[in-house]
Amino acid sequence: MHYKEISSTQNQLIKQILVLKDKSRERKKTGLFIIEGQRELVLAVKANYKITSVLFYPELISPEDLEVLISSEIERIKISKDIFEKLAYRSSTEGIIAIAEMKQHKLQDLKFPKTNPLILVAEAPEKPGNIGAILRTADAAHVDAVIIANPKGDLYNPNIIRSSVGCLFTNQVAVGDTDEIIIFLKDHKISIYSAILQEAVNYHEQDYTQSTAIVVGTEADGLSDSWRKASTQNIKIPMQGEIDSMNVSVAAGILIFEVKRQRRFN
Amino acid sequence: MHYKEISSTQNQLIKQILVLKDKSRERKKTGLFIIEGQRELVLAVKANYKITSVLFYPELISPEDLEVLISSEIERIKISKDIFEKLAYRSSTEGIIAIAEMKQHKLQDLKFPKTNPLILVAEAPEKPGNIGAILRTADAAHVDAVIIANPKGDLYNPNIIRSSVGCLFTNQVAVGDTDEIIIFLKDHKISIYSAILQEAVNYHEQDYTQSTAIVVGTEADGLSDSWRKASTQNIKIPMQGEIDSMNVSVAAGILIFEVKRQRRFN
Repeated sequence: MHYKEISSTQNQLIKQILVLKDKSRERKKTGLFIIEGQRELVLAVKANYKITSVLFYPELISPEDLEVLISSEIERIKISKDIFEKLAYRSSTEGIIAIAEMKQHKLQDLKFPKTNPLILVAEAPEKPGNIGAILRTADAAHVDAVIIANPKGDLYNPNIIRSSVGCLFTNQVAVGDTDEIIIFLKDHKISIYSAILQEAVNYHEQDYTQSTAIVVGTEADGLSDSWRKASTQNIKIPMQGEIDSMNVSVAAGILIFEVKRQRRFN
Repeated sequence: MHYKEISSTQNQLIKQILVLKDKSRERKKTGLFIIEGQRELVLAVKANYKITSVLFYPELISPEDLEVLISSEIERIKISKDIFEKLAYRSSTEGIIAIAEMKQHKLQDLKFPKTNPLILVAEAPEKPGNIGAILRTADAAHVDAVIIANPKGDLYNPNIIRSSVGCLFTNQVAVGDTDEIIIFLKDHKISIYSAILQEAVNYHEQDYTQSTAIVVGTEADGLSDSWRKASTQNIKIPMQGEIDSMNVSVAAGILIFEVKRQRRFN
């Protein structure tokens, strides 16, 4: 098989990839984003992301191995070492850089085939590393959906994809503003348990066996007032240290797994 | 009151601070490290760290406010904007940069005044952000000690101090190699619950009401074989997603708070 090759760093496609990695605005404008890594690519394909091109560096992945990963209809382009190093985050990307089309992540598209869904809502999470860790937890707990309220940026930031180790693609994810999410949850008769200190019960004393949304805010500001008003019950993790502070992805993990424990991991 | 002032970035002390922030080797050689931030400084003083000098940028903290934070015997040095910006991580350090003496963190110095202590052991954690998040969780849960086994670097990496938001100073922390830690735990009749998939029970089905050490390994390699042999019982978090992966600080948080829950947060 003969492959198209790119060896000039001045190539237009290479320039576009760099901009897509760097600029949320460019991703928004084009509807495209970048996937690095074999595992990430496989997970995105499995999740029905449309892949437009795959660039591969043959020293790290052979054309034969690439055949196994993706359907033959997807354009594949051989790149030189120079270009791979220019595009890749460290050498951890296993020779693969793909361009894919974003999904819409509309609330209305969420599907809950099981009874008593468990949803994790994170309002305005800031650090890509925390969003990635939250998505990993959500995958591990097999929650029914992750909803990002009032996002600070787009989900396709390369640091989110990387720190989620591909869990951006394995979870059902929606994005929306807080008010529409609250309406959506109420419409679906999903109880809202907001991590808010005021008027809260200890998280482990609340029953989560019915339809449940666990809602966490930012480390700096907590949750917005709308959640306080909409909450079925506020919940809190008892803090017994000198500093009233916990990493948001750790707090989300503790809450989600308490739900799972109460549901006997069913 | 008259303060010593530094306004040249070529000053020897300024150069030393930059090297202490950057180089583990220099910290080891001199036994000194750098603290940035008012809260961090206050917590370190409270934890009996010896502070040798405090540099302050008067636009961000007045000499009067500084008086309140630290004892008057500690040398304080006024610095210019140029120097502050050269030394400080972003502008989030509230005008304070201090030089302090490291502690030793010996296992033998750990004290367990309460019955049935709860200890969190992390083997070879790599990312400073994860170590910081673990220390925050440990503070929130008021564990009796955090032990770092086979550390990859020193605890006084500025990124650890920063991401721990000062919880490096609020926890009782020890460092050691895995084999001596195992001997130490056994000598103290502390049960070892290792996060290892093989021969494991689900974490929430284990009783942790007696003396407990929760032991977590790295995301890439898990725990070393010594822990498997020494374990009272291996424990695992049921993973129900597509990817068998969780952030190590999230996993530690879930395990530690299950212990806390079983102990009714007493």
